[in-house]
Amino acid sequence: MKYELFYWPEIQGRGEFVRLALEDAGARYTDVAREPKGMPRMMRLLAAKRAFAPPFLQAGQLIVAQTANILHYLGPKLGLAPASESRRAELHSAQLTIMDWVAEVHDTHHPIASSLYYEDQLEEAKRRAAVFRDERLPKFLGYFEASVSPRGRISYVELSLFQMIEGLRYAFPNAMKKQRRKYPKLAALHDRVAQRPNLAAYLGSERRLAFNQAGIFRNYPELDA
Amino acid sequence: MKYELFYWPEIQGRGEFVRLALEDAGARYTDVAREPKGMPRMMRLLAAKRAFAPPFLQAGQLIVAQTANILHYLGPKLGLAPASESRRAELHSAQLTIMDWVAEVHDTHHPIASSLYYEDQLEEAKRRAAVFRDERLPKFLGYFEASVSPRGRISYVELSLFQMIEGLRYAFPNAMKKQRRKYPKLAALHDRVAQRPNLAAYLGSERRLAFNQAGIFRNYPELDA
Repeated sequence: MKYELFYWPEIQGRGEFVRLALEDAGARYTDVAREPKGMPRMMRLLAAKRAFAPPFLQAGQLIVAQTANILHYLGPKLGLAPASESRRAELHSAQLTIMDWVAEVHDTHHPIASSLYYEDQLEEAKRRAAVFRDERLPKFLGYFEASVSPRGRISYVELSLFQMIEGLRYAFPNAMKKQRRKYPKLAALHDRVAQRPNLAAYLGSERRLAFNQAGIFRNYPELDA
Repeated sequence: MKYELFYWPEIQGRGEFVRLALEDAGARYTDVAREPKGMPRMMRLLAAKRAFAPPFLQAGQLIVAQTANILHYLGPKLGLAPASESRRAELHSAQLTIMDWVAEVHDTHHPIASSLYYEDQLEEAKRRAAVFRDERLPKFLGYFEASVSPRGRISYVELSLFQMIEGLRYAFPNAMKKQRRKYPKLAALHDRVAQRPNLAAYLGSERRLAFNQAGIFRNYPELDA
C-alpha cells in the first residue's frame, strides 16, 4: 500500500507525528501538499468535507482523519503497534492524551483564536502560557515519565513522545531546563528514538522541516519561563 | 460483559457521550463515581496513572481512556458501529472532530485555565466566545450538517451529535437560534435520537443529570449572541 498524507506543507505541526511513523517504518508515502499540484488537491478534499482539517491520510479509497486515528490505523500495518485490540486501545489512549497536550501547546500562543495573529492575543497568551508552564507541563511530563519503559518496544507513541520533547525544548527551553530532573526517562527515550537509523536519516534530510513560527511549537521568549 | 464507567459524578461533561451509548444499547454498566465509595476508587486509579483524566472505562482487566476511544471500543460491541475497519475509522474521525468541538465549547468559558474560576477569566472568555459563535460554531455545524443522513443508521456518532445540539442550545440559545436554518438535518436527527425508546427512558430518568454551571455546556448569557 502506498499512503498519501495530506498536511500543511510548511510546518511540522500535527502532521509530523504521522510523518515520523511513516519514516521510521520506511513506508512508501507521498506528502501530497508538498508535491506540485498537491495543495489544490488537499483543498478540494477539504471543500468536499472529506475531512474537517489536515492531517488526513488516504489509503486506497479510505480517508482517515485526525492524527491519533491515523496512527491507530497505521500502527499495526507499520509494525509500530501490536495487533491485539486491548494493547492497541491502550496505545491509542496514550496518543490521544499526547494530542490533548499538543492542543494545549498550540493554545499557549493562540488562546483566543487560530484566526487571529499572535500579536493580537499576546496578553492572553502570556497568561495562558504561565498556567501551561506551571501546571500543565509538569502534569503531562509526570504522566508520561511514569509510563515510559526506556528499553521497551518502540511504538508510534514513543515516536510521538520524542517529538513532544524535541518541540517543547524548542518552544520552552527555560521551562524544560527547569523541569529536567522530572523527566530523565523521557529524555533517554528521546535520544534513543533519534538514533533509530530510518529516523536519523529523516531528521537529517530536507524532508524534515525546521521548527518555525507558524507551527505548533513556537519559540516566543515572552511565553517561556 | 459488565462495564464500569469512571467519570465525575455531578456533571454530564465528556462522560455523557459514553453514558448515551451505554444507555441506548441497554448495556449493563455501573457509573462508578456515582456509587458509594466510587469516587475514592476513581481517584486511586488516577493517582496510579491508569488514565490521565476521566472518563475512562474498565472492561475486565482493560482500561480504555479518552471519550472517543471508549466509543470506538464499545461501538461494535453495543451495536452502535459496524465491524469493518474502514467504516470504524471513518466514524472515529467524526467522533474525534466532535471531541475537538467539545473542547472548544469548554474553552469558551475557560480560555486561560481549567484551574481558575470563570470569573477570573471573564474578559478572555467573552473574546473567545465571540470567535466561537461567529467562526467555529458555523464551521462545525456546517461540517456535520453535510455528513448527516437523517434516516440513516444510528451509530454512537449520531448519539453524540444529539448531545451537541442539546448542549449548544442550552449554552448558546441565541446563537443557535440565529444559526437554525443552517442545521435542519442535525435538528431532525436530534429529535429522532431523543425518541429512541431506551434513550427517551434514560433522558426522563434520574440517571440523566441536568446541565449545570460546572459542566462543559454552561449558560452564561454574556457569552451568548
